[in-house]
Amino acid sequence: MEIDRVALIGLGLIGGSLARDLAARGARVLGHDCDPETLEAALHDGAIAEALGPGLEGIEEADVVILAVPVAAAPPLLEALRPRLRRAHLITDVGSTKRTIGLAAARLGLGDRFVGAHPLAGDHRSGWAAGRPGLFRDARVFLCPTPATSVAARTLASTLWTTVGGRPEFVDADEHDRRLAWTSHLPQATATALAVALADRGIGRAELGPGGRDTTRLAASAPGIWTDIALDNTASLVPAIAALEARLAELRDALEHGDAEAVREFFARGRDWADRGPT
Amino acid sequence: MEIDRVALIGLGLIGGSLARDLAARGARVLGHDCDPETLEAALHDGAIAEALGPGLEGIEEADVVILAVPVAAAPPLLEALRPRLRRAHLITDVGSTKRTIGLAAARLGLGDRFVGAHPLAGDHRSGWAAGRPGLFRDARVFLCPTPATSVAARTLASTLWTTVGGRPEFVDADEHDRRLAWTSHLPQATATALAVALADRGIGRAELGPGGRDTTRLAASAPGIWTDIALDNTASLVPAIAALEARLAELRDALEHGDAEAVREFFARGRDWADRGPT
Repeated sequence: MEIDRVALIGLGLIGGSLARDLAARGARVLGHDCDPETLEAALHDGAIAEALGPGLEGIEEADVVILAVPVAAAPPLLEALRPRLRRAHLITDVGSTKRTIGLAAARLGLGDRFVGAHPLAGDHRSGWAAGRPGLFRDARVFLCPTPATSVAARTLASTLWTTVGGRPEFVDADEHDRRLAWTSHLPQATATALAVALADRGIGRAELGPGGRDTTRLAASAPGIWTDIALDNTASLVPAIAALEARLAELRDALEHGDAEAVREFFARGRDWADRGPT
Repeated sequence: MEIDRVALIGLGLIGGSLARDLAARGARVLGHDCDPETLEAALHDGAIAEALGPGLEGIEEADVVILAVPVAAAPPLLEALRPRLRRAHLITDVGSTKRTIGLAAARLGLGDRFVGAHPLAGDHRSGWAAGRPGLFRDARVFLCPTPATSVAARTLASTLWTTVGGRPEFVDADEHDRRLAWTSHLPQATATALAVALADRGIGRAELGPGGRDTTRLAASAPGIWTDIALDNTASLVPAIAALEARLAELRDALEHGDAEAVREFFARGRDWADRGPT
């Protein structure tokens, strides 16, 4: 099945990069963004062929509909659009949590054509200007079908992401959210909490060395996007944050007791973990 | 005053980089490292002109003596070397804490010629192979004199670091340690604690995206070096870790109560801090 006409709602880092890549590969991208300047820039750069109407008129024509909006905005948008998605072979999104949107799609009777997607290509930047061609090259892309998703829709979702260079992996939506709480949402919460602690203490980012800047880089991420993600994945994120608090308390306790062996072992555990992975 | 003959004990990331830069600028570097292969490599690369004897014989000849050893090793080494430092115009170190070594120098009667140094050029790598020419270019270098340090020794310390491209800043040793607990030691503790939490959960580094890898990069740092630093600066580091625990608990609490406004404000505080500093 060909990916000819794609409707893409939201032209931020992920949506905007996807528009650039799909247009470069010959797809006709019908785009929308609530920011008129972003829409103008995307038209000007040729990343979108045409703007959808202010009420998303034109979306009826799309073979593939992609919601690239914040996690909390996607379910109500899907509901509003439902009567106009009769033609679409694939309905998908790009959010960092997959359980809620998958349940919404199923509830709306769109489960057979819905595949949630989460490309691991985000960073602390956001918005149209942060997007770029090739963002998804070699990126892992988690694909979460609903129990009702058709083989055709699964195949089309896979094709969509390999077309832009990604490496799709099918995974259960619940399992996705549980793992991402640790691999992505906890690192974000950590960087933000460290930034807030430094801010409270009156320490500016310029005072940090290269290592401290790495540790706090994610603090620059868009607050709105992360508020949605954290609230949507609270059930898994709360125990992850609690686990980090416990590890910090363990180190603090070892220091308070002057327990050199425990302190050394703590740093060694961190290094062993780092040594077993990529740099 | 010229920097002609420099004795450099310890050829790891900092000592090894310093040897390379000083040799390239015409200084005669007499070096030592407890690892014979490191010593061999440094001689082979011309970073050191000559190896000191196994008991550091030859150190008597040096104008400048630099201890580039772990924080806990420096004070006893200074004590052992004291009778043979009569000729040296400057005695210095490169450790990440400055209070203890400064007090040791003063106690040993070396205060007039001692200036503690801390170049902000470390990262998660360590050892001779991690060193490189130009490591200190544009790096901040904290210089901590003792109350007795002579003007000549201060000037020589400043010259030493500007010679290799650093930007020296004189600062009180106690104040240095208090600030570094937040700007450097807390980020290290954070990255390690996050790594340990992920390790406990069975999550490998390869599962993280680019942002999570940044947040945990420092976990690869050498455990021995950081055990020393953390123990030496426990008084300042413990409250810093406790402050981070409190901020994590604040976020966790807001999530548990589904308080969207508090969660949003938390991420916004982190982003405001990040926006006010370099990327």
